[in-house]
Amino acid sequence: MDYFFKPRGVAVIGATTNPFKGGNAIVKNLIAGFKGPVYPVNPRYDTIEGLRSYGSVTEVEGPVDLAIVFVPAPEVPSAVSSCIEKGIRGVMIESGGFAETGPEGQALQERLVSLAREGGVRLWGPNCMGLVDAVNGHVFSFMDPAAFQKGLLQPGRVSLVVQSGMLSAGFLVDIMTHGVMGISKVCSVGNKIDVDECDLLPWLLEDEDTAVVGLYLESVVKGRLFLDIMRQARKPIVVLTGGRSRAGAKAAMSHTASLAGNSAIISGALKQAGAVEARDFHEMMDLCRTLALKERIPPPRGGRIAVLTFSGGAGIVSSDFIEERGLGIADLSEQTKAALKTLFPEWMPVNNPVDLWPAMERHASGKINVLARALEMVFADPGVDGAFMHCFVGNFRIHVDLEEMAKLCRQYKKPLFIWLLGRREDAYRFQCEAREHGIGVYREIGRAVACMEAFFRSGYR
Amino acid sequence: MDYFFKPRGVAVIGATTNPFKGGNAIVKNLIAGFKGPVYPVNPRYDTIEGLRSYGSVTEVEGPVDLAIVFVPAPEVPSAVSSCIEKGIRGVMIESGGFAETGPEGQALQERLVSLAREGGVRLWGPNCMGLVDAVNGHVFSFMDPAAFQKGLLQPGRVSLVVQSGMLSAGFLVDIMTHGVMGISKVCSVGNKIDVDECDLLPWLLEDEDTAVVGLYLESVVKGRLFLDIMRQARKPIVVLTGGRSRAGAKAAMSHTASLAGNSAIISGALKQAGAVEARDFHEMMDLCRTLALKERIPPPRGGRIAVLTFSGGAGIVSSDFIEERGLGIADLSEQTKAALKTLFPEWMPVNNPVDLWPAMERHASGKINVLARALEMVFADPGVDGAFMHCFVGNFRIHVDLEEMAKLCRQYKKPLFIWLLGRREDAYRFQCEAREHGIGVYREIGRAVACMEAFFRSGYR
Repeated sequence: MDYFFKPRGVAVIGATTNPFKGGNAIVKNLIAGFKGPVYPVNPRYDTIEGLRSYGSVTEVEGPVDLAIVFVPAPEVPSAVSSCIEKGIRGVMIESGGFAETGPEGQALQERLVSLAREGGVRLWGPNCMGLVDAVNGHVFSFMDPAAFQKGLLQPGRVSLVVQSGMLSAGFLVDIMTHGVMGISKVCSVGNKIDVDECDLLPWLLEDEDTAVVGLYLESVVKGRLFLDIMRQARKPIVVLTGGRSRAGAKAAMSHTASLAGNSAIISGALKQAGAVEARDFHEMMDLCRTLALKERIPPPRGGRIAVLTFSGGAGIVSSDFIEERGLGIADLSEQTKAALKTLFPEWMPVNNPVDLWPAMERHASGKINVLARALEMVFADPGVDGAFMHCFVGNFRIHVDLEEMAKLCRQYKKPLFIWLLGRREDAYRFQCEAREHGIGVYREIGRAVACMEAFFRSGYR
Repeated sequence: MDYFFKPRGVAVIGATTNPFKGGNAIVKNLIAGFKGPVYPVNPRYDTIEGLRSYGSVTEVEGPVDLAIVFVPAPEVPSAVSSCIEKGIRGVMIESGGFAETGPEGQALQERLVSLAREGGVRLWGPNCMGLVDAVNGHVFSFMDPAAFQKGLLQPGRVSLVVQSGMLSAGFLVDIMTHGVMGISKVCSVGNKIDVDECDLLPWLLEDEDTAVVGLYLESVVKGRLFLDIMRQARKPIVVLTGGRSRAGAKAAMSHTASLAGNSAIISGALKQAGAVEARDFHEMMDLCRTLALKERIPPPRGGRIAVLTFSGGAGIVSSDFIEERGLGIADLSEQTKAALKTLFPEWMPVNNPVDLWPAMERHASGKINVLARALEMVFADPGVDGAFMHCFVGNFRIHVDLEEMAKLCRQYKKPLFIWLLGRREDAYRFQCEAREHGIGVYREIGRAVACMEAFFRSGYR
């Protein structure tokens, strides 16, 4: 798979000068981030985006490991043939118009498969958005180049395999601009006629830039192999399978011609193989970024949580979710309670959930950082495995020192999860800062606790 | 209750010139939005925020319907006595330090109850954030005046009753700045020693400015009465009860001294009484704003949904949720399919979910507004009760004309729900615009479908 992820040179078959076409976007995206040589291929032009345009990929002199193909479906087989002639090992077909369009497309697709087998070339796609690698700055895709503004594509430790083109593109822009998660690689595999999750998953599990793999799959073709890979994985894997219901399976058939419908069985098998299941797209992202935190803070055995809140009500709802998810509300030691008591006003009893609002009011002058001190006190308690803090940003004189809290997480080797309310702009900045510090931030209590459960309970180390 | 919601004059007992104290914020908030006279009461000052400060509320000449009390707990009984002497009918006690702090506070609280009974005055609170009325611009609360920047407090049709002070404040700021929901009234009732949900709910159910009531309750004191009120309600009611679990019930006891724990029973009873249950705070908001749409588009009987998507994958996951929630994927008529076919490329079969991406690519020039036309075609189908559209905003040349789609909703009397992905800033603007047009926008497919279920299935008309 290295020719897809670390190519020495990349050809673009179907490159064009028309800025409204994907074949132009692919070239622009390569120029912007790929460090090796880029070879546009289109006999109608002399140059494209300032680069020489070749009549055929066979005319390129230098080594080419990867060709990205974006020509109409009927022209794809001859493009693949010329790639084989040139000795290219990886061909990424981003054009649509294959099995998803009916019997004719299906036949075309089968021709590609035989061509590839005979020619010893691997095919990625078709009907996909290609590959984005935020760590290396690779955008091997026809996605709008304007989407990748400077600084938006945040490198991170989560890699995704997505069997849907538009969705992976839409999600990538969503993730990039909401500041929630850094990305290692997004692999959009489309109809996956050759390269599939059983090729990509092992590669990503060995990839130094990947800590967690998230997969959105409409079908699992090589079920036994896939489960074996997961069983042996030493990194967390999150799986979202579409087509669980009768209606969903029918929709999957018409989308990527996938045979779903046996997903109840798949679902159970995934669990047994140690994967974490997601049911929705943002949930998958939230689970992935949470499990990526395990690299920084290996989960202590247990799951006894100290809840630090500014609102008794939120503490109560948190307790409900924590108990329902099989985690525990930690019993604070007498020593911890005595320590917390020094922060509290005289009248206030100490319980878990720890209602910090009166303490924050008492120390509003700011000499004592109530949130960080309270976090340190509960982390020092051997009966506490992690903390769930509720924060409000904006408009109040409460300072949340994420840097100091991240230090406490490292010092005590215990994780911190934050439920965040507050002003939109402040919440965005907070989320970005927390991401850098390895602290999980969530917008809903239920989602935060579901992610905490995955953090403490998922088997992988 | 009119003296709380429509007072002729408001006194602030515990007003102060110190800008870091709540007693100052209350006065500032009143000056900014309340149209009647404001009377600060504090013998230590001559003027507060440019208004005459009174030594006692009894010295005020004009009519005072409401007094907001923000003095230390031990001084509250004498403040209430002076209110009774002045003939004030509504007293809103925002100070804490009562039953939630132990037996002494409990005794103090009981003294207030007897005082109120004897004096014929109604008490709101204590230990609460008071009342915010976005339609009339009333902020009867010690919340930071900076939070209510011009234009942020969007009037809407949802009223909330929240048994938690900080939470209601935090949520209000969150709601205001995220653009998701307009607000009619937020009532923070705290320890609710007198005024409680059984007073507020009937008032809000008659209130012309309220279409939906959402309640966060840690306890239901007058269970039978509460259920009777809900059973007779002609507006949707959403209820979130904290303290469902053992751990949650324990936390509720120490927060507002509420006896929860029988919430499994409460939960079943609420359902029977026709309320919609929420399990988390943002979920409650999402349900409330969805049910508020029923005023504009009364739900057709049924719940057969047309899914219009840019991603086959999202269509599949939507189908799963729709089937699981007991709604249906609509069977499109042959006529509808033929109409949609005119938008599609030749090869493309028409199914539901309707994958519009190839049609959008085909009409990228923009002469045909594919999303609006497809919406009109499915709305015209008598087998379709509502539409679930997936939209992506930013970076692609797809125009989503919310105004035209809102017109179609009115014309066909069918609701539109949107799952939104995309650039953060664009998504925010989209959300604000959709709110004005009465179109529900959601960040997660599962949540969107849960809200659709409530929309089609909740009994109230």
